[in-house]
Amino acid sequence: MHIGFLGLGNMGAPMARNLLKAGHRLSVFDPVPAAVAALVEAGAHAVDSAGAVATADVEVIVTMLPAAAQVKAVYLGDDGLLAHARPRVLLIDCSTIDPHSAREVAAAAEAQGNPMLDAPVSGGTGGAAAGTLTFMVGGSDADFARARPLLAAMGKNIVHCGGHGNGQAAKVANNLLLGISMIGVAEAMNLGVALGVDPQVLAGVINTSSGRCWSSDTYNPFPGVMDNVPAARGYSGGFGCDLMLKDLGLASEAARQARQPVILGALAQQLYQTFSAQGHGGLDFSAIINLYRKEPQA
Amino acid sequence: MHIGFLGLGNMGAPMARNLLKAGHRLSVFDPVPAAVAALVEAGAHAVDSAGAVATADVEVIVTMLPAAAQVKAVYLGDDGLLAHARPRVLLIDCSTIDPHSAREVAAAAEAQGNPMLDAPVSGGTGGAAAGTLTFMVGGSDADFARARPLLAAMGKNIVHCGGHGNGQAAKVANNLLLGISMIGVAEAMNLGVALGVDPQVLAGVINTSSGRCWSSDTYNPFPGVMDNVPAARGYSGGFGCDLMLKDLGLASEAARQARQPVILGALAQQLYQTFSAQGHGGLDFSAIINLYRKEPQA
Amino acid sequence: MHIGFLGLGNMGAPMARNLLKAGHRLSVFDPVPAAVAALVEAGAHAVDSAGAVATADVEVIVTMLPAAAQVKAVYLGDDGLLAHARPRVLLIDCSTIDPHSAREVAAAAEAQGNPMLDAPVSGGTGGAAAGTLTFMVGGSDADFARARPLLAAMGKNIVHCGGHGNGQAAKVANNLLLGISMIGVAEAMNLGVALGVDPQVLAGVINTSSGRCWSSDTYNPFPGVMDNVPAARGYSGGFGCDLMLKDLGLASEAARQARQPVILGALAQQLYQTFSAQGHGGLDFSAIINLYRKEPQA
Amino acid sequence: MHIGFLGLGNMGAPMARNLLKAGHRLSVFDPVPAAVAALVEAGAHAVDSAGAVATADVEVIVTMLPAAAQVKAVYLGDDGLLAHARPRVLLIDCSTIDPHSAREVAAAAEAQGNPMLDAPVSGGTGGAAAGTLTFMVGGSDADFARARPLLAAMGKNIVHCGGHGNGQAAKVANNLLLGISMIGVAEAMNLGVALGVDPQVLAGVINTSSGRCWSSDTYNPFPGVMDNVPAARGYSGGFGCDLMLKDLGLASEAARQARQPVILGALAQQLYQTFSAQGHGGLDFSAIINLYRKEPQA
Repeated sequence: MHIGFLGLGNMGAPMARNLLKAGHRLSVFDPVPAAVAALVEAGAHAVDSAGAVATADVEVIVTMLPAAAQVKAVYLGDDGLLAHARPRVLLIDCSTIDPHSAREVAAAAEAQGNPMLDAPVSGGTGGAAAGTLTFMVGGSDADFARARPLLAAMGKNIVHCGGHGNGQAAKVANNLLLGISMIGVAEAMNLGVALGVDPQVLAGVINTSSGRCWSSDTYNPFPGVMDNVPAARGYSGGFGCDLMLKDLGLASEAARQARQPVILGALAQQLYQTFSAQGHGGLDFSAIINLYRKEPQA
Repeated sequence: MHIGFLGLGNMGAPMARNLLKAGHRLSVFDPVPAAVAALVEAGAHAVDSAGAVATADVEVIVTMLPAAAQVKAVYLGDDGLLAHARPRVLLIDCSTIDPHSAREVAAAAEAQGNPMLDAPVSGGTGGAAAGTLTFMVGGSDADFARARPLLAAMGKNIVHCGGHGNGQAAKVANNLLLGISMIGVAEAMNLGVALGVDPQVLAGVINTSSGRCWSSDTYNPFPGVMDNVPAARGYSGGFGCDLMLKDLGLASEAARQARQPVILGALAQQLYQTFSAQGHGGLDFSAIINLYRKEPQA
Repeated sequence: MHIGFLGLGNMGAPMARNLLKAGHRLSVFDPVPAAVAALVEAGAHAVDSAGAVATADVEVIVTMLPAAAQVKAVYLGDDGLLAHARPRVLLIDCSTIDPHSAREVAAAAEAQGNPMLDAPVSGGTGGAAAGTLTFMVGGSDADFARARPLLAAMGKNIVHCGGHGNGQAAKVANNLLLGISMIGVAEAMNLGVALGVDPQVLAGVINTSSGRCWSSDTYNPFPGVMDNVPAARGYSGGFGCDLMLKDLGLASEAARQARQPVILGALAQQLYQTFSAQGHGGLDFSAIINLYRKEPQA
Repeated sequence: MHIGFLGLGNMGAPMARNLLKAGHRLSVFDPVPAAVAALVEAGAHAVDSAGAVATADVEVIVTMLPAAAQVKAVYLGDDGLLAHARPRVLLIDCSTIDPHSAREVAAAAEAQGNPMLDAPVSGGTGGAAAGTLTFMVGGSDADFARARPLLAAMGKNIVHCGGHGNGQAAKVANNLLLGISMIGVAEAMNLGVALGVDPQVLAGVINTSSGRCWSSDTYNPFPGVMDNVPAARGYSGGFGCDLMLKDLGLASEAARQARQPVILGALAQQLYQTFSAQGHGGLDFSAIINLYRKEPQA
């Protein structure tokens, strides 16, 4: 299949590579020339603009962009995708943005005859490279069925969450809970250890009890409890604090518009903000445990 | 084995019954005569006071009491267990109290030659009846080995958490995280549903993603998502808000003494307190989701 | 002076009346015909659109609109003020919006030769009617000097806060603190009374000590402490919870963009949101004290 | 008048000196010999123990101790004040402790015929030296009338707050609000300044608007806004973070016992705890503003 692909950053580039590996033909665009060059070397065809992706003879266009502002510009701009896309070309936006904007862009697309899906991912750059991403997809049953094989070339868990924007809504809800859970684990581990329990013993108790959660049993933030997690390598790599901060910002803004309280969520957002303002926004989000670290006594 | 058992409430009574079923001989005491009578009918021998339990020819004494004040009175009082216990009788306190008090009582016990374990449980009245409780145990290796078969008659997961008070410390840390996670799930479910996602679809996404936790996959608070949880029966039964409030009070007080911040934990405590003050303290703790419920529009 | 005035709602209408009383000539517009008719009866001249206000022979245009979306539409729209305003007409926006949007509109205005001020107010509908509003003004010294006499016809405290957007920034900071203080007073009063202190005695202690604040000494939320405040009349009138919620939303969004934590502020926002979702958004914001009210025991 | 005085620390010593200056005769005790020696040099008479203060021929005994544990030991201990006090000697405890403990001690005192008042102070070491403390007093009208002249020798604002423990309750409520307000001012100042407003201009707006409070107009935490406050001298002196932390701990514990939520209060406590754990507990509590400080960009 001939596919257009826009956005070749840390996530988009490995996703595009997986589509090439699956045998698809790709026409790609990114404002960073080196990003384009790397994909061309891997077998993609370069075009000059978002509009040129749309005018290429593609059946599907995939976008992976930083935020809603870029999504709106790329889709709704004067030289954007909607201005040039041929009828019935399927548009799949994998960016993480707010559900409201996702619905706005989808409505514009469908009004002119282009089916659209929002399909944000989880799994990070590791999952993007390994082709094991989770896709949370919003849109019609038929469009989801059409996109599924394509998404399966880039991920292994493809979930249909309902109509337009529901992929974003599900992701925002999941990451709200993730952001809270991680701080909860940080507090529980630090408290138990301060009270004298060995960290591995404590994690063992929690992971077989009612406190069990992904942040504890798969991504424990306390150093020495697990291997192969950011806590085992100085909190490098992984999912950055500033990305968690972005997602919690989407969650609290969506909550505000829906007039729905997110009390712990808003506090979690502020704690990541505090930690980021102290200069640690580039560390993995599990480093938030250091906000609770006590200074050694003199 | 001849065992003394004090405290025949909602938890203590079924635990004592499981010891009888396992073939042990029991001498029991509780200030509520009806509670004693029910156990006598099940085969236990009644005695008149805490002191009388200690003077009976028991090898082990198990206590299951409401709070630290009762534990101190029963162990340290003029007619209490320590005043009368014969040397080397093993004392096992299954009450949930603060680690500091647990260590204080254990030190007094060992000073006069009685080995002691703190062994708080999780699993609720259902687990107590079914004999599937988790025991989190603090004390020496030898005493843990001695107590293990006895505890296994009442539970199925028996975890040694380190020295005196560490059982309490592990429980307090786990329940701190549990109290936070449940509110996190409540916020995430309510937000996703307010944004248009079906609750069962949303729970499915979360339970296979990084938001996964016991409060979501085993005890989901959103009505209609799971059967056989309090949310499916009007939040009756289960683990009451006021018990969660007690445990979060123990956690924040232990944190205060350890000079360790518990930011989300303290907020969670206040939210359960708010909900309890509104008259809902007797509901299962997952009912906290109703604090976030929007009034129907007129 | 001939003045254009757009936005004749609960705040705008009494402000416009005070300009008429001060002897100015007014050309007014509002999409609600009855609002226009009432001002015409008071002596104003009605025009048909925002553009028509700009093309009238006015020296100054004052706008008082609900939110940033309306401000952008009225100023930047195809038939908006900037499309039609004659050079050097002074534009004064009294709406409460985010500083970023205020700066964006001001930059567009000044780029085409129209000086502009942001001049949000505090003091409520009572202050608007009495002409005792506080104006927090952002813009140049010269423009501030030019606007001052006009603003003095509508208010009594006219403060220059610096360049464009600084009026909004000062207001958002003040109201962030106000929203926090009010909840702080609610907690302190409820706690002291729950501990047995008479509410008036407690307010007296606080108002002469380090807890003293406007929310305590001028607008106390505890019923029976003061006359002539919303707490003395069932929390009717005053400054609605939903307006406080809007202002805290502006504050937290501005903080997010500035990457500045507002920890208590974000929590306060969520508490007003919780109270509003429970159906009380129309009450005065001091009614938040009822979120803490205990149910009478049965 | 012959007065007994126990507790000659940073607060107690200058208070005792003011009683000497007012012409009273003092018998003093403190476990630190140097503290006693300094008072003896100023004219006091030293005795050897708490009990010895009580057996001296005093009419009134004043105590100023660190926490409830010391108060209970000094009043209720085997060689304590109640064991030795002659009938009708008036006992005045100026320590800051929880209302519950204050009531417990007062009940014991009155049961044996000694009238008692709780009379915690505000005003810090400066106020203690200058004799300008505020006393918040709990006890009977008659006892308050009897104590008033004595307290007036040490302070200038003597407030009767009701029965036993109400002095403590009023102080705890005031300081709860103070701890919240200070963080609110820190957030508001930091936000406004981050948005471009000059700190002095912003403080001027707040201090004449609805955000006005003691933490802003008398003790502003932003450096450069006021002289003669801790913010002007690197946050040295003043009222330490760890003392605020102690008072918020009393407030949240009293709230827990009264089943009264203190949502912002509990969060404020955790923020001071976080800041203290980072090594800053000895700074004035207004230094909490530094928790929000952004790292300079490289």
